Amino acid sequence: MRTVNVALAERAYPIRIGQSLLAKPELILPYLKTPRVAIVTNEVVAPLFLIRLVEGLTDAGVAVESIILPDGEVHKDWPTLNLIFDGLLASRCERSTTLIALGGGVIGDMTGFAAATYQRGVPFIQIPTTLLSQVDSSVGGKTAINHPLGKNMIGAFYQPRLVLADIDTLQTLPDAELKAGLAEVIKYGFIRDLPFLEWLEANLDAILAKDPTALTFAVERSCINKAEVVANDETEQGERALLNLGHTFGHAIEAGLGFGAWLHGDAVAAGTVMAAELSARLGMLQSSDVDRVRRIFERAGLPVVGPRLGAERYIELMRHDKKVEAGRLRLILLKEIGQGIISDATPLADIEAAINACCA
Amino acid sequence: MRTVNVALAERAYPIRIGQSLLAKPELILPYLKTPRVAIVTNEVVAPLFLIRLVEGLTDAGVAVESIILPDGEVHKDWPTLNLIFDGLLASRCERSTTLIALGGGVIGDMTGFAAATYQRGVPFIQIPTTLLSQVDSSVGGKTAINHPLGKNMIGAFYQPRLVLADIDTLQTLPDAELKAGLAEVIKYGFIRDLPFLEWLEANLDAILAKDPTALTFAVERSCINKAEVVANDETEQGERALLNLGHTFGHAIEAGLGFGAWLHGDAVAAGTVMAAELSARLGMLQSSDVDRVRRIFERAGLPVVGPRLGAERYIELMRHDKKVEAGRLRLILLKEIGQGIISDATPLADIEAAINACCA
Ligand SMILES: NC(=O)c1ccc[n+]([C@@H]2O[C@H](COP(=O)([O-])OP(=O)(O)OC[C@H]3O[C@@H](n4cnc5c(N)ncnc54)[C@H](O)[C@@H]3O)[C@@H](O)[C@H]2O)c1
Ligand SMILES: NC(=O)c1ccc[n+]([C@@H]2O[C@H](COP(=O)([O-])OP(=O)(O)OC[C@H]3O[C@@H](n4cnc5c(N)ncnc54)[C@H](O)[C@@H]3O)[C@@H](O)[C@H]2O)c1
Ligand SMILES: [Zn+2]
Ligand SMILES: [Zn+2]
Repeated sequence: MRTVNVALAERAYPIRIGQSLLAKPELILPYLKTPRVAIVTNEVVAPLFLIRLVEGLTDAGVAVESIILPDGEVHKDWPTLNLIFDGLLASRCERSTTLIALGGGVIGDMTGFAAATYQRGVPFIQIPTTLLSQVDSSVGGKTAINHPLGKNMIGAFYQPRLVLADIDTLQTLPDAELKAGLAEVIKYGFIRDLPFLEWLEANLDAILAKDPTALTFAVERSCINKAEVVANDETEQGERALLNLGHTFGHAIEAGLGFGAWLHGDAVAAGTVMAAELSARLGMLQSSDVDRVRRIFERAGLPVVGPRLGAERYIELMRHDKKVEAGRLRLILLKEIGQGIISDATPLADIEAAINACCA
Repeated sequence: MRTVNVALAERAYPIRIGQSLLAKPELILPYLKTPRVAIVTNEVVAPLFLIRLVEGLTDAGVAVESIILPDGEVHKDWPTLNLIFDGLLASRCERSTTLIALGGGVIGDMTGFAAATYQRGVPFIQIPTTLLSQVDSSVGGKTAINHPLGKNMIGAFYQPRLVLADIDTLQTLPDAELKAGLAEVIKYGFIRDLPFLEWLEANLDAILAKDPTALTFAVERSCINKAEVVANDETEQGERALLNLGHTFGHAIEAGLGFGAWLHGDAVAAGTVMAAELSARLGMLQSSDVDRVRRIFERAGLPVVGPRLGAERYIELMRHDKKVEAGRLRLILLKEIGQGIISDATPLADIEAAINACCA
């Protein structure tokens, strides 16, 4: 088992990464305030992992409530969040009851928000079961639900006391979901960790084959990268923006086709290629570097060209991204492979040219 | 104008108290992040005060959105909260837009929770317009909405950047609402401020007549008391519990008759008499002290006897109060007039006797 510590002002907490962690309640017990938990999961994840977790905790003397939500991003909304509150209140859960999220990023984000707001805040533990949630959404304390007028518009910053990333859970994950997480893993290499990128290039096949050792390393190294960025910049003023590499272009793809048409990871991959292409046009990357970006995404089975929405439409959609303040278009570019930079003043003509060069 | 500073770990903020504050946008401007605000108010308060506030801000160059909610505690719920999010998103309010609550505690609690969670937190200003909200709910950073299974069950701790208590707004306040606030004002005297209690005894008629000088002093002194308690104990472990004088008994009255049957302030007054009676039975107060407690509430037009629910029912309801952890009955008693204490081990027989002595 590996441990990554997230060093945050208010409270540091550990991420444990390894195999068979679900069946080890002793990893959880030290983080409970009282021997009572409410596990929040969904209809897909519950049959796979819930019993294992409940049995371990029950044997260890912990009183367990389970709340099983419908599956899917469409249910990351208030009515579903309210099912969590209904369950907590019906079983009279107290301020000292710990909420445990068991599932992907949707369950993690919703349960985290429920923990942040139930009786104004209760203890929270994350057990992420998708690659994306293990390497991205469970680190950094962002929680949220969607509003019909915008994704993740209602939420809170709320840190868990513990994250348990059990690599074994990834064995049942559909390939498309594995790739979605991989896009974010690769991103860490591009923005700040060249040695990790090189390791990924050498070990991509092992990851795609879900080799536990390779997965453990990839998750650990991703968490280290995200934790460092978040600890340096908890309030998202500077460095944390680097995590948005490929995301502003990607947002335009997702919004332009209607959310859900493309997987987020697919949009991020194609968006990252656009960012690389733009970086080359601005003289920061070589064209061989852009090829290198394309190649790793292609090998991972991720798309490297965007849909042909027209460059103007892309830019219009990019301007409406939540991350844009006062209409200023802030892009993450690559100064070189392994080093992202924030650019606030890229000429529109170059952005358009890069988009046009990367659309099917 | 008087200023009370709330000294909190994360951020201190001022409470300004005085007349004609609504018409002074210069009090607000220094606390805005960008010249854009969204004012949240309700159908009763909007016709009284909204135009004055909007005109001042608009003249000062601030872009203003207004969101007008239905009135009443029954609307302190998710669907109404969602009207705030709808309004913010429809007008594309950004993370830098300041939310202003203009109204009583219901508007303040809901707007504060919206500010805590819209895009994971936006700047927040309180303009409380009831006595209760000026002396109690706008100080301390508690925000919340109700759930069908419990009051204030979903919320956050979130501090405003500024509180503006314009005493003039109290002129239109119905008498019943003035008295509700007065119950909390008197409470501060009993738990920690004997000189203030004496001042209240001498100036109660001026307050009931809404004399601005008397009201300004009462609001200021109340805010000082609450701010000190909150600053000493932000996370509600110890001293802050003193603020619940009369509230555990009062909760039983409110819950026993169905919420809304009695005004909260009425229940607190009758509950405080019970707490005083119990304190006397335990040898801490003289019976003349209990008479003193009764007398000030009577003069304020507040009830001093509770409904006859039966002592057992009272105790059962008291056990279900949110503030009770693990079934332990924690009561606030009076060691003497002007000094509250927390009691975790009061004999049940004495509690029953005190209740029986104070029911109609
Ligand atoms: N909080 C953050 O910082 C952050 C960062 C990135 C993304 N997110 C959010 O994360 C969400 C996406 O997360 P996600 O990609 O994990 O999606 P998800 O939670 O919807 O999971 C994807 C699918 O896999 C299923 N699943 C989960 N674990 C499984 C397993 N072990 N085996 C088989 N199936 C399994 C899920 O039920 C779901 O159907 C989005 O809502 C996004 O906004 C949050
Ligand atoms: N956050 C806290 O720490 C805290 C503390 C105590 C109470 N509260 C909450 O506060 C709420 C009660 O607040 P409240 O007593 O102000 O009730 P309220 O907000 O419902 O106001 C009472 C009534 O007076 C009206 N009103 C407001 N200002 C007026 C004015 N100037 N003139 C005429 N009418 C006016 C309101 O529209 C309403 O009809 C409850 O929901 C309670 O849970 C919160
Ligand atoms: Zn992403
Ligand atoms: Zn009260």
